[in-house]
Amino acid sequence: MPMKNGGQYTERINNNMAHVWLSGEQVKGPLSEHRAFKGLMATQSSMYDMQCEQAWISKMSYPSPLTGDPVGLSFLQPKTKKDLAARREMMQAWTSKHYGFMGRSPDYMNTALMAYSAASGLLEESNPQFAFNLQNYYAYCRDHDITLSHVFVQPRASRIPNICQMFDLPEPARIVDKNNEGIVIQGTFLLDTQGVTSDEILVFPVAPPSELEENPHAFAFAVPSNWPGITFLCRESFVGGESSFNYPLSSRFEEMDTLVFFDHVVVPWDRVFICGDAHVASRFFEDSHFYIHTGAQIIGKNIAKTEFLLGTIENLIDVAGMENHAQVIEKVAEVIVALETLKALQIAAEKKASRDRWGSMLPDQNALLTASVYYPKIYPRLIEIIQLIGASTLIMIPDERDFQSEIKELILDSMKTVHLNAQQNVQLSRLAWELSVSAFGGRQTVYERFFFGNAAIVNNRLYNGYQGGESFKQRVKDFLYGGNE
Amino acid sequence: MPMKNGGQYTERINNNMAHVWLSGEQVKGPLSEHRAFKGLMATQSSMYDMQCEQAWISKMSYPSPLTGDPVGLSFLQPKTKKDLAARREMMQAWTSKHYGFMGRSPDYMNTALMAYSAASGLLEESNPQFAFNLQNYYAYCRDHDITLSHVFVQPRASRIPNICQMFDLPEPARIVDKNNEGIVIQGTFLLDTQGVTSDEILVFPVAPPSELEENPHAFAFAVPSNWPGITFLCRESFVGGESSFNYPLSSRFEEMDTLVFFDHVVVPWDRVFICGDAHVASRFFEDSHFYIHTGAQIIGKNIAKTEFLLGTIENLIDVAGMENHAQVIEKVAEVIVALETLKALQIAAEKKASRDRWGSMLPDQNALLTASVYYPKIYPRLIEIIQLIGASTLIMIPDERDFQSEIKELILDSMKTVHLNAQQNVQLSRLAWELSVSAFGGRQTVYERFFFGNAAIVNNRLYNGYQGGESFKQRVKDFLYGGNE
Amino acid sequence: MPMKNGGQYTERINNNMAHVWLSGEQVKGPLSEHRAFKGLMATQSSMYDMQCEQAWISKMSYPSPLTGDPVGLSFLQPKTKKDLAARREMMQAWTSKHYGFMGRSPDYMNTALMAYSAASGLLEESNPQFAFNLQNYYAYCRDHDITLSHVFVQPRASRIPNICQMFDLPEPARIVDKNNEGIVIQGTFLLDTQGVTSDEILVFPVAPPSELEENPHAFAFAVPSNWPGITFLCRESFVGGESSFNYPLSSRFEEMDTLVFFDHVVVPWDRVFICGDAHVASRFFEDSHFYIHTGAQIIGKNIAKTEFLLGTIENLIDVAGMENHAQVIEKVAEVIVALETLKALQIAAEKKASRDRWGSMLPDQNALLTASVYYPKIYPRLIEIIQLIGASTLIMIPDERDFQSEIKELILDSMKTVHLNAQQNVQLSRLAWELSVSAFGGRQTVYERFFFGNAAIVNNRLYNGYQGGESFKQRVKDFLYGGNE
Amino acid sequence: MPMKNGGQYTERINNNMAHVWLSGEQVKGPLSEHRAFKGLMATQSSMYDMQCEQAWISKMSYPSPLTGDPVGLSFLQPKTKKDLAARREMMQAWTSKHYGFMGRSPDYMNTALMAYSAASGLLEESNPQFAFNLQNYYAYCRDHDITLSHVFVQPRASRIPNICQMFDLPEPARIVDKNNEGIVIQGTFLLDTQGVTSDEILVFPVAPPSELEENPHAFAFAVPSNWPGITFLCRESFVGGESSFNYPLSSRFEEMDTLVFFDHVVVPWDRVFICGDAHVASRFFEDSHFYIHTGAQIIGKNIAKTEFLLGTIENLIDVAGMENHAQVIEKVAEVIVALETLKALQIAAEKKASRDRWGSMLPDQNALLTASVYYPKIYPRLIEIIQLIGASTLIMIPDERDFQSEIKELILDSMKTVHLNAQQNVQLSRLAWELSVSAFGGRQTVYERFFFGNAAIVNNRLYNGYQGGESFKQRVKDFLYGGNE
Repeated sequence: MPMKNGGQYTERINNNMAHVWLSGEQVKGPLSEHRAFKGLMATQSSMYDMQCEQAWISKMSYPSPLTGDPVGLSFLQPKTKKDLAARREMMQAWTSKHYGFMGRSPDYMNTALMAYSAASGLLEESNPQFAFNLQNYYAYCRDHDITLSHVFVQPRASRIPNICQMFDLPEPARIVDKNNEGIVIQGTFLLDTQGVTSDEILVFPVAPPSELEENPHAFAFAVPSNWPGITFLCRESFVGGESSFNYPLSSRFEEMDTLVFFDHVVVPWDRVFICGDAHVASRFFEDSHFYIHTGAQIIGKNIAKTEFLLGTIENLIDVAGMENHAQVIEKVAEVIVALETLKALQIAAEKKASRDRWGSMLPDQNALLTASVYYPKIYPRLIEIIQLIGASTLIMIPDERDFQSEIKELILDSMKTVHLNAQQNVQLSRLAWELSVSAFGGRQTVYERFFFGNAAIVNNRLYNGYQGGESFKQRVKDFLYGGNE
Repeated sequence: MPMKNGGQYTERINNNMAHVWLSGEQVKGPLSEHRAFKGLMATQSSMYDMQCEQAWISKMSYPSPLTGDPVGLSFLQPKTKKDLAARREMMQAWTSKHYGFMGRSPDYMNTALMAYSAASGLLEESNPQFAFNLQNYYAYCRDHDITLSHVFVQPRASRIPNICQMFDLPEPARIVDKNNEGIVIQGTFLLDTQGVTSDEILVFPVAPPSELEENPHAFAFAVPSNWPGITFLCRESFVGGESSFNYPLSSRFEEMDTLVFFDHVVVPWDRVFICGDAHVASRFFEDSHFYIHTGAQIIGKNIAKTEFLLGTIENLIDVAGMENHAQVIEKVAEVIVALETLKALQIAAEKKASRDRWGSMLPDQNALLTASVYYPKIYPRLIEIIQLIGASTLIMIPDERDFQSEIKELILDSMKTVHLNAQQNVQLSRLAWELSVSAFGGRQTVYERFFFGNAAIVNNRLYNGYQGGESFKQRVKDFLYGGNE
Repeated sequence: MPMKNGGQYTERINNNMAHVWLSGEQVKGPLSEHRAFKGLMATQSSMYDMQCEQAWISKMSYPSPLTGDPVGLSFLQPKTKKDLAARREMMQAWTSKHYGFMGRSPDYMNTALMAYSAASGLLEESNPQFAFNLQNYYAYCRDHDITLSHVFVQPRASRIPNICQMFDLPEPARIVDKNNEGIVIQGTFLLDTQGVTSDEILVFPVAPPSELEENPHAFAFAVPSNWPGITFLCRESFVGGESSFNYPLSSRFEEMDTLVFFDHVVVPWDRVFICGDAHVASRFFEDSHFYIHTGAQIIGKNIAKTEFLLGTIENLIDVAGMENHAQVIEKVAEVIVALETLKALQIAAEKKASRDRWGSMLPDQNALLTASVYYPKIYPRLIEIIQLIGASTLIMIPDERDFQSEIKELILDSMKTVHLNAQQNVQLSRLAWELSVSAFGGRQTVYERFFFGNAAIVNNRLYNGYQGGESFKQRVKDFLYGGNE
Repeated sequence: MPMKNGGQYTERINNNMAHVWLSGEQVKGPLSEHRAFKGLMATQSSMYDMQCEQAWISKMSYPSPLTGDPVGLSFLQPKTKKDLAARREMMQAWTSKHYGFMGRSPDYMNTALMAYSAASGLLEESNPQFAFNLQNYYAYCRDHDITLSHVFVQPRASRIPNICQMFDLPEPARIVDKNNEGIVIQGTFLLDTQGVTSDEILVFPVAPPSELEENPHAFAFAVPSNWPGITFLCRESFVGGESSFNYPLSSRFEEMDTLVFFDHVVVPWDRVFICGDAHVASRFFEDSHFYIHTGAQIIGKNIAKTEFLLGTIENLIDVAGMENHAQVIEKVAEVIVALETLKALQIAAEKKASRDRWGSMLPDQNALLTASVYYPKIYPRLIEIIQLIGASTLIMIPDERDFQSEIKELILDSMKTVHLNAQQNVQLSRLAWELSVSAFGGRQTVYERFFFGNAAIVNNRLYNGYQGGESFKQRVKDFLYGGNE
């Protein structure tokens, strides 16, 4: 199967049968019918259908270099600015299905894998076989339209090996054995978003230091999600319910996060990309331009999300009749500034793109790392603006079922507004509530805050990777000291 | 029954049987066993028990001037600074049960009613009977320990009578008839918090303007919650579940908000306080010093809540081992500044209290209106700080039931920390999650933002009521112009 | 004289001899030798020299359509994106002389006049002669390289004619007579920046309302700065001194602001553009796309300025050895975000440019109005960051003369750093001081805050002119209500 | 001379004749007639006069325990809450002369010296003679009303001895010799505010580490400002001019900052308080409660300053006629919140005061350290609010001399407002300009930002000194875990 449709996606996930636990019980039966996964899988299914539709296939695919079959365009290594534009348009098309609420829309991991594979040359130094494995795995995923998740963060308590032993805390994930079959992995990873609704899992931890020459914590590999020894533990589901009237967002876009336990998992050699080489592991994220390539995907998602928030806010203002209030205009202007800033950074990133050492047409790093610092700060403010404009209409909201009850006339009468009937008004309030008050909305806010690490990490990445800063420093020196430095 | 205990409170509410709808169904059977009200009522019951306990009764009651029986101290009209201190200590004692999470802890409405009654002289001008009714009603509530809720806000669409008619929108609440029995009320009110778990409801709307001499929108009265013609519609319950492990806050402190419909409700004359006199109605809030007296109750609640947040944050920092990180210290310092500011304003309000025209010892208006502007701004920031410090530990949290499952060993091992075992660690995370991510937490944030109106309203109240500002203006004039003005 | 050089600029201003008052005395003698104007005029002179230099002339000029002589490129009406790029490059070249500190670099007014003239069609409706006058005046300024200033704001007290009469306040500027020669103007204008160092003055007030059919407050015209009846009153000069060591900025870039009094000034008919038609006057700013065309000039200036601030901050960090401090990196990251945002908006504005009804290639309004809301907010923060990083080195700074005094050895020894000798270190401190502490810096901050009006005004302009917002609103409606609206 | 008057103060300073350099020249002749010091000394003189006035002497003095003569009340070690109140009232009385603009009003150093002396017991451990010296010096200053300045910060480049040697940078201040006469000091200190206009200088550096047992950088002593070997270098004077019309603040309150060079300064043994004992030196600041005692003085100064800012803002709003603008009210409300917060913290600090180990009645640490974190953040915002409300009236301001010029009628007419004549209006603008735009105002802002160290330092001091935090942490644990911890 080259590019898959929604039915194929669903079937594969349902057949996958990973070991999944939720609220103290093991999840059994088809995931696509489980309350916690149903809506998300339906949305994702519609995305895979879309890419196979006649109207979209040419815009959303390209011929596989191996087979000639159409494969997902987000797997394409961009070599020209035209490629970048095509990738952007494809990914934007998908946002018409998820409006930016899915941080793990499949194009994200497709892009990540493309970035790693393009930089597989880095692995050659330590082990050419690993480089080959990675390229091979990329081709496999591309040509089979594999839905992928990834993990790289470990529980805080297990990040420093020495302390773990001292306090009898869990050790960080590590290679506990190597044998003919492959490497054997033991450990726990945090926050595998959509781990359960993906075909495979890519594991690539930030390796804690080790005194050994071969660092047992330094590795990277990929296996199917249902591989022996892997167990997923879900957090509480934030799906409010199946009603898209009551829960317009969580009934469609709730991406489950999981803890993943690896208990003596045997990873076959041909799926190993890094093994023991901490130096290569630590350079790989930066040198593969992972943050830049995925940054181009993320900014598109964030534009879609911000447009959705702006649209929501404009509807709230209409209902409240506050379109002339200076304090409301001030807040909408903030939202517009955020949106136009993202759009401009997206344009600039493409316009100033240049070829990197791996032959990729790389979007501008300054623009995209700027976006990665900017969005985690501005997203919570956008949600705050919804609270400030929505006020009490975010709290006192009827339920869809109230409109079928005996007292429905009371509600139909008292909740109507100049522009909307009572049901529409309530639907809008429920949307604003899901965005800014509900657990689904709360998780979205936390997720955006920490998407690429905490503030110190993203600031550092921007500051240390900033290109051109030296020239401004020198300009000021020239201004002050002329030639006499 | 003078001061009641928890059992009496519960029995009375259960017997009350108001008309309540929730998620399309009428609520039947005892409220104290209903999932949405159970935890809250248990907490409230423990508060009423506390005031009757031997160890507390003398600190939490005073003898009724009518009967000599002990009645709740929050009904006491303060005449001295000692009274203020006694009231403060009583209300603080109750926060040991609700930690500031209950905006409608009974002392709030007890205080409000006391303030109104003390100012009943204002009503004498238009109608001495109404003044008498109000004093009488206050005495009745005090001597029977009536649990009260109140409403004053109406749906936005019905605030301007002319527009309502033009667009066929619901008219604002109004007196539709007057007869021998009393006045007849038609209309809808927003956001009656704890309406369903109170004995009676006090109705006192902000009256829209009218061209009639007797403004039909200007009225005030109180009736039992189960009075004929009254219907309550609940919002979705934010009780996550009964487990106090999973939902330490919402299983105990979730105060339901309701829409209240009045359909030809006949209010007996002896329960009417204002009828048609828009002038008196509009002055009553300010002139009764409602915002100052209740402000003294609120600041105590907010101190308790902020102490709880600070304690939570300190525990999170311990778990994360970040007590030396400058960026963490900066944030905790913000929380400390907020807490010490509130505590100082509370002290100042009492220290600068003075007698008002109603014979009350009135806490300092400058200090308490300052707090009413300050807390709605700072509370969301405190919650943001929990998100910033909690980070991913707010998302990937197991459930109590996971600790009873087959995979419990995996969790027990991987979630433990230097200071806490896995369960304690998870409990702390669930608390932080309820505060900063869940719908319960989201509603608390919106509630604090708009407690006494939006920012423009509370700013105005502070600015226009500010005492002493003229002297600073004059001081600068003297400095600049000397005597030559 | 087509395009002029620095000598010609200086000679013309010196010969102009306007009526100028400063600190209670009339300014006499050549302005270019006066302490308050000397440095600015030298900088401006170097800019005019630059455009005539062999290396630059082709990039900075184009042939006059009338004479074929080279004229300043900032006068060019852009008709293609190439024109926009050429204009941008020309204006950026000039920033190498003023680093963005001159809000009235000549390209600003050249651009403004171009925008007005391109839209002269608007004036045809009321009076074709006025349209002709405006085009003619534009051609005259372009072909003679006239340095222009402009005024449009009046003293606050004189904005509402009725109130002025009631309190005997100054009336707003008005046409007091019309005769054969022209119109006669009486009134006062605020804040003519560089009025004294320009050849001519363009007057185009925001007209207060009038009950008369011909509104006497609605007019627009241009006259030479030394025209009879015009008097300029300067504010205090913020030139710290002539030493570019002590005052690297104010010794070069201090643009004087003036109050301008018009006392029975007779404006010849051929210099009148609007006379009495308040409707045309009020539409002209928006419809001529004044804010968009000048917005493209301003964003270039602001980029240059922000680069200069970033360079300064990077030098301060080097001196302090704080390049690894998280709290410093956080602040520099903010500056980088600001700079990259501006650069991206500039790129987007050009990329999304489109032809307007006047035949101009108009940069994207969304992007440039976004910048006009953004910069007034972020500039003060950038200056604050200089204070936060500079700390005490902004206060305790020696003077150039101290390095020639008897105690110079003490200073040379104690003020040196790892990277800079004592003098260089002091120069850097003086620069940071001028930016963030001095009156020159303070005026720059206030200027940026209010460049295109206060926050309410620029927010309104963005909100009401925002293109595309409807589609986001509709998208949310489609999402919520499907086709059933 | 016990408590001195203004004439005595002036005479003593004029006779002192320290070695002072300003702008490359040595300052000669009486300081009280020098443009840079005149206004400040006149203000300070009026303060010393005030304390000797009949109406004030009893409120501003107490009898010296040694002589019985009246001495300044700010020297009093408080032993009761009444003492604290008396001290507060005395210091507040002095703010009627300086309105909080003098960071080195004499009560600041009087209080500091009192705090040190009260804690002289700390010095007993290492050397009883030093303890005696300190008590003796305190008594001397008190009984002779010595005006004192102090230094403790050194140039950044000289803070780390090892690096200094590596890069040939200036070494930190140190004891270079000890002999019969005393200790010999070599080094440079930053930012001795009012060093030149004080009688003596107290030197107490933060000692860099040393490998020697007796750390040569650890010392404390006091000497007269004109002592052999001491040289003061002034920064540029920010006195705008002598006109109090033009420069209402800087003509009166400009406190000069200086660099102080010590070149083989011999400090007599009886003026040495610490010599080589780094341990004692490092504990002395905290253990003497320096930050708490001076914190009580500072909060009074900051209240006076904030009242002055609020008064200024209220006058600006009157002139602008904006008292009903929501966006203005929002900003004034911020100022009121700041002022009431400070006032409440002052009340709380006194109310919760308690006896410390030195027998002092110590104001509450939580409240005063909170103020020390709060004010550096809020002061810049208050100044920003002046910019936002003042807008263009902060830029285009005439000069006093313009009102005597030929064009004065133009100004008198055009600058008048409903409430103020033109001169009063201009005076108000000049005041707002000095506060928010001028170098005097800029230096005040930087000074407030860093009064007690940068944000990290003051946050740390609050966080680590916070009393009671443990109980909140425990309360949350009890809530979560009950007794099962």
